[in-house]
This record gives sequence, structure tokens and C-alpha cells, in this order.
Amino acid sequence: MKPLRKRDFPVEQARRFLEPGPIVLVSTAWRGQRNLMTMGWHMVMGFSPSLVATYLWNENHSFGLARGSGECVINVPGVELLDTVVDIGNCSGRDVDKFERFGLDAVPARDVGAPLVGQCHSSFECRLHDDSQVESSNLFIWEIVRAHVAPRPKLPRSVHYRGDGRFMVSGAEVSRRRRFKPDML
Amino acid sequence: MKPLRKRDFPVEQARRFLEPGPIVLVSTAWRGQRNLMTMGWHMVMGFSPSLVATYLWNENHSFGLARGSGECVINVPGVELLDTVVDIGNCSGRDVDKFERFGLDAVPARDVGAPLVGQCHSSFECRLHDDSQVESSNLFIWEIVRAHVAPRPKLPRSVHYRGDGRFMVSGAEVSRRRRFKPDML
Repeated sequence: MKPLRKRDFPVEQARRFLEPGPIVLVSTAWRGQRNLMTMGWHMVMGFSPSLVATYLWNENHSFGLARGSGECVINVPGVELLDTVVDIGNCSGRDVDKFERFGLDAVPARDVGAPLVGQCHSSFECRLHDDSQVESSNLFIWEIVRAHVAPRPKLPRSVHYRGDGRFMVSGAEVSRRRRFKPDML
Repeated sequence: MKPLRKRDFPVEQARRFLEPGPIVLVSTAWRGQRNLMTMGWHMVMGFSPSLVATYLWNENHSFGLARGSGECVINVPGVELLDTVVDIGNCSGRDVDKFERFGLDAVPARDVGAPLVGQCHSSFECRLHDDSQVESSNLFIWEIVRAHVAPRPKLPRSVHYRGDGRFMVSGAEVSRRRRFKPDML
């Protein structure tokens, strides 16, 4: 699969892609090593600064790279990458370079050392904002410092994990804008 | 809408319903007050104990009830409740009793003081597991102590917020069980 062309996107609107709760691919790089992990445990925590929390298990190879560098890129894959997403979650970066193994383009980021995944629909460059819960709870709170989003398709068909090997694929979009108070939008 | 009949469900499998990232209704009760809020900022953090983190803004009426009681119920609504979900997010529990206003059944929980929302597909009774980030980051880490899930429909058509008044409705389920190493399931 060819990499998607992405454009700069407002970081404070990263929720458009992350808040629905998709499985993401987290890329990291530190001291000549790089890695990629499949992750479903994340949540938006703010708009400005644009914050997102992730739980990274401390036995994952990516944990050390994320903590050491204080950086990562959170990438949102579409369903066309589902088999790759599963396979990335089923091997360790200790043994293989996952970009090479799975034919993914490691596109240089602008502000962090970790690469973007070229084949993903959107990529969010992150710097560690709060590390106070990393040791105790494996909880990283990141600031999204730059966002890259493919203009087409407008929205990815994202995949959402249910456990037990089962995924939900994103469905239709519906708007209730008219029902919101303007200051709640 | 009539309340759904729910059954006990294994707490360590709460991820089936929460990890895909749906909008949830959080119910709280404390000192004779009760409330209900619409929330999208949550993530699974563990299976056993069954942990989930939520960001509750400290200006929300529910923040005080959650912190004071150390309890809540996280309820997953289906798309048939979407207008109600939006309206709940657009008014404050300081002014109205949202169960009465929106015709929702407050069903007594088993282990916590906050009520289940009868019309929601699943309801997870929670006790505060870690309050160390409540003051600094509005982050509550909850243990799910009891789970109630409607057997029909097997899965809810959940709604997932994108910001700007727009929602994604959950789509088809796909399995990749055969692709997983057994110990990764």
C-alpha cells in the first residue's frame, strides 16, 4: 500500500480522529532504535494544549523508547490495515523492525524523532507533557504538538477493539450540531 | 423508552463495551443529590482488577459528586438515545434532575450508591481506585466492581463523539481471532 499524502491539521481538533476511540499505531524512536505498537488504551484530555493520555504496558518494548525519548507519534490506521495492525500487536520490536517487516513507510516527523506511519490516515506528533504517572500507573500524558491528516478520505474507516480478537469498524457519521448550545461545540 | 433487562456480566470483560470508545452516561449520587453526565473521555487501564480512567472536568456538577462519594456508574447508551445524550450534555445537574427531565429510569445499583440508567445497554458500577490525579489532572481511575449488560441486542449501536456536534455510529463487527497468538487474546 502506498503512503497517503497528509496535510497539516489544527492540533486542537485532534479529537475528531482520536476521541471516537480507534485502535492506533504508536511509533517511537530512541538511541538508534525505533518501534511500532498497536494500542487501544488512550483518551483525549484537553484541547489547548491538545492533550491525550495513553496506557503503555511497561513490559512492552515501546515503553522504554517512549519514556527515554519523551516523544511518540500516534497514528490512526484505516480498516484496510487491519491484518497489519493485528500482526504488529503479535510480535515484539525486540526481535524485528516492524516498519521493514510490514512494509510501512517511516516518514520523518517535523518536531519529534519518532516517525509517522505513511500508510495511516492521520498522525499526531506528541511530546510528553506529564510523566508523573508513568512509573506508578504506566500512564503517559502527551501534548500533541503537530497533526498530519489525509484530506481524502475525509474520515478513515477506523477499527475499534472489543477484546477477544474482535473489532468494530466505524460506521456512519451523524450530526446533532443544531441541538448543541453554541458554547458546547 | 422502556428500560432494558440486563444480566450480570464478568467485570474483567467490560472492555467489550468500553474499549471501542463510546460516549457514556456517568451517573453519580452523593448526600441526597444525583446526577448524570455525558462523557467521551475515558479509557480502559486493566482487566483484573478491571480499571477504567475518566477525565471529569472540575467545573462539572458531577465532579463533586464523584469525588465526594468515590463512586459512579458508567452506562453505555445506544444510538436510539442520541438526542437525550446530547441534551444531557447541554444542561447542568445544578438546575435539573436529569433522570426526571429525560424520562430515564434510575435503577438501584448493587454495590454503589449511584443508579444505573435503565435505558442504557450496559452499566458498570465503579469505585474510585486511585484518586492521586483527581486534583491535579481531573483524572479518576475507577475499578469496575459489577457489570450489567443487556443480552439483546448482543451489542449496542454505540455513538462515538468527534467534536463539533458530530458523532460516529458503531459499524460492523469483524473478527481476526485466528490471527492472534492465543496468549494475546
